[in-house]
Amino acid sequence: MNHKINLMNDYNLTAHPEVIGALAAAGNRRYTGYGDDEETLRACDLIRVEAGLPGADVYLLSGGTQTNMIAARAFLRPHEAIIATETSHIYNHETGAIEAAGHKILPFAGSDGKLLPGEIEQAIANHVDEHMVRPKMVYLSQATEYGTVYSREELVEIKEACVKHGLYLYVDGARLGYAMAAEGGEGCGIKEVAAEADAFYIGGTKQGLLFGEALVISNENLKKDFRFILKQGGGMLAKGFVLGIQFRVLFQNGLYYKLSKQANEKAKKLRDGIRELGYEFEIESVANQVFPIVDNQVMAELEKDFLFEKWHRKDEGRMSIRFTTTWATPDENIEALLSALKKLR
Amino acid sequence: MNHKINLMNDYNLTAHPEVIGALAAAGNRRYTGYGDDEETLRACDLIRVEAGLPGADVYLLSGGTQTNMIAARAFLRPHEAIIATETSHIYNHETGAIEAAGHKILPFAGSDGKLLPGEIEQAIANHVDEHMVRPKMVYLSQATEYGTVYSREELVEIKEACVKHGLYLYVDGARLGYAMAAEGGEGCGIKEVAAEADAFYIGGTKQGLLFGEALVISNENLKKDFRFILKQGGGMLAKGFVLGIQFRVLFQNGLYYKLSKQANEKAKKLRDGIRELGYEFEIESVANQVFPIVDNQVMAELEKDFLFEKWHRKDEGRMSIRFTTTWATPDENIEALLSALKKLR
Amino acid sequence: MNHKINLMNDYNLTAHPEVIGALAAAGNRRYTGYGDDEETLRACDLIRVEAGLPGADVYLLSGGTQTNMIAARAFLRPHEAIIATETSHIYNHETGAIEAAGHKILPFAGSDGKLLPGEIEQAIANHVDEHMVRPKMVYLSQATEYGTVYSREELVEIKEACVKHGLYLYVDGARLGYAMAAEGGEGCGIKEVAAEADAFYIGGTKQGLLFGEALVISNENLKKDFRFILKQGGGMLAKGFVLGIQFRVLFQNGLYYKLSKQANEKAKKLRDGIRELGYEFEIESVANQVFPIVDNQVMAELEKDFLFEKWHRKDEGRMSIRFTTTWATPDENIEALLSALKKLR
Amino acid sequence: MNHKINLMNDYNLTAHPEVIGALAAAGNRRYTGYGDDEETLRACDLIRVEAGLPGADVYLLSGGTQTNMIAARAFLRPHEAIIATETSHIYNHETGAIEAAGHKILPFAGSDGKLLPGEIEQAIANHVDEHMVRPKMVYLSQATEYGTVYSREELVEIKEACVKHGLYLYVDGARLGYAMAAEGGEGCGIKEVAAEADAFYIGGTKQGLLFGEALVISNENLKKDFRFILKQGGGMLAKGFVLGIQFRVLFQNGLYYKLSKQANEKAKKLRDGIRELGYEFEIESVANQVFPIVDNQVMAELEKDFLFEKWHRKDEGRMSIRFTTTWATPDENIEALLSALKKLR
Repeated sequence: MNHKINLMNDYNLTAHPEVIGALAAAGNRRYTGYGDDEETLRACDLIRVEAGLPGADVYLLSGGTQTNMIAARAFLRPHEAIIATETSHIYNHETGAIEAAGHKILPFAGSDGKLLPGEIEQAIANHVDEHMVRPKMVYLSQATEYGTVYSREELVEIKEACVKHGLYLYVDGARLGYAMAAEGGEGCGIKEVAAEADAFYIGGTKQGLLFGEALVISNENLKKDFRFILKQGGGMLAKGFVLGIQFRVLFQNGLYYKLSKQANEKAKKLRDGIRELGYEFEIESVANQVFPIVDNQVMAELEKDFLFEKWHRKDEGRMSIRFTTTWATPDENIEALLSALKKLR
Repeated sequence: MNHKINLMNDYNLTAHPEVIGALAAAGNRRYTGYGDDEETLRACDLIRVEAGLPGADVYLLSGGTQTNMIAARAFLRPHEAIIATETSHIYNHETGAIEAAGHKILPFAGSDGKLLPGEIEQAIANHVDEHMVRPKMVYLSQATEYGTVYSREELVEIKEACVKHGLYLYVDGARLGYAMAAEGGEGCGIKEVAAEADAFYIGGTKQGLLFGEALVISNENLKKDFRFILKQGGGMLAKGFVLGIQFRVLFQNGLYYKLSKQANEKAKKLRDGIRELGYEFEIESVANQVFPIVDNQVMAELEKDFLFEKWHRKDEGRMSIRFTTTWATPDENIEALLSALKKLR
Repeated sequence: MNHKINLMNDYNLTAHPEVIGALAAAGNRRYTGYGDDEETLRACDLIRVEAGLPGADVYLLSGGTQTNMIAARAFLRPHEAIIATETSHIYNHETGAIEAAGHKILPFAGSDGKLLPGEIEQAIANHVDEHMVRPKMVYLSQATEYGTVYSREELVEIKEACVKHGLYLYVDGARLGYAMAAEGGEGCGIKEVAAEADAFYIGGTKQGLLFGEALVISNENLKKDFRFILKQGGGMLAKGFVLGIQFRVLFQNGLYYKLSKQANEKAKKLRDGIRELGYEFEIESVANQVFPIVDNQVMAELEKDFLFEKWHRKDEGRMSIRFTTTWATPDENIEALLSALKKLR
Repeated sequence: MNHKINLMNDYNLTAHPEVIGALAAAGNRRYTGYGDDEETLRACDLIRVEAGLPGADVYLLSGGTQTNMIAARAFLRPHEAIIATETSHIYNHETGAIEAAGHKILPFAGSDGKLLPGEIEQAIANHVDEHMVRPKMVYLSQATEYGTVYSREELVEIKEACVKHGLYLYVDGARLGYAMAAEGGEGCGIKEVAAEADAFYIGGTKQGLLFGEALVISNENLKKDFRFILKQGGGMLAKGFVLGIQFRVLFQNGLYYKLSKQANEKAKKLRDGIRELGYEFEIESVANQVFPIVDNQVMAELEKDFLFEKWHRKDEGRMSIRFTTTWATPDENIEALLSALKKLR
């Protein structure tokens, strides 16, 4: 058992007590299998309301890589490719799951973790005939892997590029709640993403649940036979209601929003504190992640008492590191970290 | 909400209270991600002990189709095929997940849901050169989809055929506990399967957990880089400890065995009662499933008050149906069903 | 160098002299690459005329397995499966190429190598939900692997079953010429297959060319972006005109029909002669293959002077064997074989 | 029929007359199928001698994309990736064939079309755990897509990086003959590539044959069951001897070297002539391709009489273009082009 203060990531704890409580309370109920139960139906209805998409199809899956992979398999023909940033999760951190499903990802540099509309134009311009893959889907993450957030205008601009070139827009919302709870993120949440995306998912794993991601498909062309691909890809839980119960709890009384807000407030407190101490940042993140740059010896000292992620080597002597907060991060942990950073400054 | 008595399957309820309790109790703990936590390590150790395989690699996954698919991807080269019965889950009920992973399944008739050693010989004899796939893995389920159980001798005989022809033996243990708790199944459980199989999984979803399957790999040749394939196939949960906690509870005090035994006792009570009433059976199952044959009108009457699965049409007027029990099946439900069947006789 | 008389198969020789002559004559020409040349355009036009399908898309590929695999990749979504006989080439003799492309083949017993319309109904009846693959394409070979031929009525009946259930009909015409040149095969050739199939291919490799198969796609839904899949699957030759020249020669003056007829006449002569000698047949083939049943010692004697294929073991003492003819099979070889069989009778 | 002078590529003509002549001469021979014939055996023996690899396995395939795809399928496990330049054929011009086979390509900028050893180090440094693919194979093309050539020292240096990190070295030799016939390319041909590569192919399509590529596998670990993957991938021609005859002709009397030399001499004449006229070049190519930079209006004028490939837009007013020569390029075509370029200067 590790006794260091854990600010490593937002998937280091089980689930919010209300979620566990609901699972416990369901002990005497008997459910239909494979997501055809009333809890799942209710959860999906709640999500349709949140998204403002009464006609959308909603599916509950186990994890993000699984959701992205199954979406690619369901939505794309073999020669169709995905446009994404080089820093995106599907390009870097899913062990080639998309390629294993047969699809090329076309990587672009982006800016602050965000894809630029001009990069979509460039992808189209570069792929001119049948000797090359056909760009067919744009992948964004909201919030990004760098804790930045696409503004409403940026989403609209990207969508326009998609429409112009017949591309689907797919948004990975593993941390969508942290985007909308971010400073300046008011118009960047579920409803706004839902308005632009052909399909997107709302992450539960990093947002208060034991596990689970809710995939929302609004484009009619992408809906057909999805349950076949879901099952084939190993994404259909026999006890679908275990996901249904969790998402029902997450959305029936605004728990999702409350937890997102709490996590971001803690991150802000940490970010402001670190800035005040005079540290620089790798990136101006606004969601629940903070990326200060520290000297190697500061990092070594911090590692004795804190768990965090090493991000990028900046130069011989400095490194950027990542701290992540959740609704459950104790304030005293934030303070302990700030105090340690102050001492090491 | 359905008020019928649900004897449909063994995945119609959440989890045993001890499992939920352990998840609740873990609320204040913080864990390392991706299965590198102490709960998962402990669960895997417990499983190694149960299996009598101190050197085995153990991984915790979300579901059976996922486990089978990822195992096939990890263990087989593109031209290598799987030998299985026509009635097996991977051949029939996984939406072609194995084929979607690129591998052919060679189907055989089997007997009572069980593959025959002679069928392995036949597969080898039929596949003679590079114009055909190469049979490389034998797939069994223990218990089978028909509630029957491979005896120790049958397992050994199958393993001998595998060794003779250089085949891996893979056992789907979605209901392995029900096999060892079956009448005559004493020597047919985890340890015996572990002694013969190159890899197998112990199902948790249908045996008391919210979800989860534990894959055990003992053949050294199958171990390499498994975590890469696990991640790529969408099988690595960020919160691996959610599985770790559950499997720790399942195996630390024999809960797995207790629940298996309870389920089988209820099935036996139901089976004996139905037999006494003079009904015939589709098959002489011994695990937690019962397959009586009933007249169509009996079935129609039963459907008013009970949930069960329609199995096979026997002839114009008769059908076999499947009832499944769990540790949580109330005795009064068994009695209600028997009483209904008596009335309809 | 083997000096035995070779009646092994119909791909044991280079190509008809007119084909080689046309390749030689093209030496000073320069062509556009990848099938965009005037020879390929002309060949495809000729094929459209033969097929009676002025609006069809036609592509020239290198081999049969490649064509079947690329067609499956282009036409089917991941969960869609192919209905075929157990004896079909794609099920048995393509090393799982279809499964490696991700698609399950649903095998049926058929009759005389031919799929029965009732088997299509059975496939549909067996696959009822998203836990199973969805049957989506019917695969026939015309002539079949057993040298039998679907009659016009049989083709129509199969097509009706396809239309009824929303299935594509795909015909493997590796030996389509031998089907139409068969006794009773007048109405079973390119035009008739073209009238029923959504896509089919006309084999060149076994019908007079060095290599090459012409895929004809008439269903509009199957046409989109085919060249992408063709290239991706390794099926687009840089020197597409090498195929174009060959198919132009094959169809500009009826060479295809002439060679098919010659091969079948030689097979008929052989079949009639063997029958006269009192041998039984494995199957009443009508195309360019003959399947007599012989005693093991007769087979052993024949092997000293002839090359042929061993087909099926009938019982302890007897075997069926396969002789195949081509336009180029010398009459004296037929006579030598008949004379040997007479001596061994 | 296009009457422009065709300097578009090196696959715009059928084959050298000796190749066609050998195919014509084989008309009366009968062969074993699927590459088990004496012509293929002889061709593979000749190639083993050229490569200085008496123990290598050699296979003859139809095209380059097919060869690369089948090699990737045979050599790599699902999570293993290929390191290549962004300008390489497999990354850019094979419609995602490698990804469709399930493998990610890790792109690097390279220099002059050549991968740098430091980029291999970078790939290894970037891929540290099972959340990322594992780099396992390095892909080079010799000559490169830019007509440049890896020197002996560069090949050795790359191989050392491969050995250090347990990577396979795979060389795409679609234009290998042009590499060794290049100025300074004496030590950069078949033998030198063979000495370093674990597997490589010698292109025939662009080097005098109708079609065909010879894959040479020297690493024992890559040999197993290759014929299964070859067949499954659609790469095994029924009439394998059609490839065997062609490669036998190419290597029995040094035709391959003679034709390579002729093509390069013509390219050199063209390159020297263009340089003398004062044009700049996109790149200092040394093989059979020439990449001058011309004003847009020069290009427009050239297009009236010549076929060539547009390469890169340099700026508003200028473009690089590609001319390619073969053994069969008439000297008068070179002169006509030089004369046109002179006039337009």
